[in-house]
Amino acid sequence: MATIAVLGAGMMGSALCVPLADRGHDVRLIGTHLDDAILRALRASGVHPKLGVELPPRITPFDHREIDQALRDVDVIGLGVSSAGLTWATAQIAPYVSPGQPVMMITKGLVAQGGRLRILPDVVADGLRGQVFPAAVGGPCIAGELARRAETCVLLCGRNADTLDHLSALMRTEYYHVSTTIDAVGVEACAALKNAYALGIALAAGIHERRGGVPGSVALHNFESAVFAQAVMEMRRVVDWLGGDPDTVGGLAGVGDLDVTCNGGRTGRFGHLIGLGLGTRRAIEEMAGATLECLEILQVLRSTLPGMPDHGASLPLLRHLIEVALDGVPVAMPFDRFFAR
Amino acid sequence: MATIAVLGAGMMGSALCVPLADRGHDVRLIGTHLDDAILRALRASGVHPKLGVELPPRITPFDHREIDQALRDVDVIGLGVSSAGLTWATAQIAPYVSPGQPVMMITKGLVAQGGRLRILPDVVADGLRGQVFPAAVGGPCIAGELARRAETCVLLCGRNADTLDHLSALMRTEYYHVSTTIDAVGVEACAALKNAYALGIALAAGIHERRGGVPGSVALHNFESAVFAQAVMEMRRVVDWLGGDPDTVGGLAGVGDLDVTCNGGRTGRFGHLIGLGLGTRRAIEEMAGATLECLEILQVLRSTLPGMPDHGASLPLLRHLIEVALDGVPVAMPFDRFFAR
Repeated sequence: MATIAVLGAGMMGSALCVPLADRGHDVRLIGTHLDDAILRALRASGVHPKLGVELPPRITPFDHREIDQALRDVDVIGLGVSSAGLTWATAQIAPYVSPGQPVMMITKGLVAQGGRLRILPDVVADGLRGQVFPAAVGGPCIAGELARRAETCVLLCGRNADTLDHLSALMRTEYYHVSTTIDAVGVEACAALKNAYALGIALAAGIHERRGGVPGSVALHNFESAVFAQAVMEMRRVVDWLGGDPDTVGGLAGVGDLDVTCNGGRTGRFGHLIGLGLGTRRAIEEMAGATLECLEILQVLRSTLPGMPDHGASLPLLRHLIEVALDGVPVAMPFDRFFAR
Repeated sequence: MATIAVLGAGMMGSALCVPLADRGHDVRLIGTHLDDAILRALRASGVHPKLGVELPPRITPFDHREIDQALRDVDVIGLGVSSAGLTWATAQIAPYVSPGQPVMMITKGLVAQGGRLRILPDVVADGLRGQVFPAAVGGPCIAGELARRAETCVLLCGRNADTLDHLSALMRTEYYHVSTTIDAVGVEACAALKNAYALGIALAAGIHERRGGVPGSVALHNFESAVFAQAVMEMRRVVDWLGGDPDTVGGLAGVGDLDVTCNGGRTGRFGHLIGLGLGTRRAIEEMAGATLECLEILQVLRSTLPGMPDHGASLPLLRHLIEVALDGVPVAMPFDRFFAR
């Protein structure tokens, strides 16, 4: 059994600790300065207040003032922070990471650096001076379900197959099914893109409601599923452009994560509000306090589309979502430009 | 403008007539002997009783006793019957079809003939003595939405590109978006397979409910989306084996139709009941009268899996769904055998 420290005690970082503890590892869950209320609740009751679940006793909570003690002599370090906190978190763990030590991250996605897109595991590897091959978790995983030990299948991706084999063997339980792939570019691109496209899929229900419709089997499901299909086709194009494997889109990280993202969550709620006709500013106000990953990735993509071979002409859905969500253009889905092969 | 006759006045055949009428064609909607009650209602009120929608006046209803009058001197013949009625319907139209005449069908899918799978447009072409290239409609289309002129994107497939160009130009309206593909094998295989796999996706909500859960953002969505992803991967394998284009699965006919099928409908309801633990016999009783395409296709697939190169070993989800739905084996999703690349 191993000793594993996870930095970031939000929902996803904490949920990841549950299978690790069930697997028999000693788990140290380290709160950031944003997690003080969570840490207090955990220490008082053992219950994670955002997950609403009692964490197993094998998980020991640490707060950020105890980071030195928590990160010493661990076998694996996990990054459980959001993408906004990743640079900070990487700097925190850097002094404790030894060459070749497994680092895994639930933070995932793309950032724009100098007009091109980079995947977060590469950014973390840079921050750790290239001494490790970070592995990142992709695929459909609602934290509240994993924390309740509901069946969950994820994809662990990274640049080094040995690291992935080693880590995935440490992570698997009878309810947490971990596959591996060295197509880190494909998985990370999907993880980012699914937020943008799920916004588009969620528009349909909002538009239906705005027109006076009620949820049911006759709604705007044809609209919704056409957008879903076009999203998958465009995700293949972006992954291909970035040098990933387009077939990754047809698995857990792509269609799986896109599907789960449409089952509630912030992106779906935001898309619904836009579909209702609220406009971006009011929709953001309605969701006060929520991190809107879909807007972040749309901004990242807007800045990099000009660098695509066709300047993004083959991504009519993505371009419309950028207009709608970032510029306040009314929704007018360009279906006639979809489904070109 | 053209004169178009559609045989079969059920929900999908009738819904298809709405964009054809809006496009300015003269449309003859012919009821079969199963559609007498629909025809009576249509003639009395103009409202299609199953769709709950008033059909445009450009659609003239005919009953099966008037078939000779209805099929004479038409430019296009459409088959709007279910797969069970396809042989009968093909024999009905055969005397009226001239060589090269466009025939389009909303009936879609696969049948087993002599241990191998054949697509329905090929079966119809045989029944018409090979004089025409039937075109079939695939993709996500809930009839009740199309009949209400909700945005709908479909894929018209067939073996002859000229026929597809001609027909799709006749069919398009501002809300009915018709793309074309000569990958008839891929589209038809997807149309059949999506029913089998949607059953598997629908299990999750039933299992969640059986365990005392209520619908919400924390349910068994991880389970559901993992099955969705595995379904897409297996559909690619089957399409490839049949000689179709696996990339068809990543578009309207595959992921699009799979997604829409999960939004209600008979297959989803049946899968939900199986997930609740009712067992196949009781679930069928609960759905008295409903045609269960998912069971039909699972039977077809069971008879042909032995002919696959690996005897279906690379389709663990499909094999489990066959056991569950046809043999009454309890659900025990084999996640550890999923996601092999």
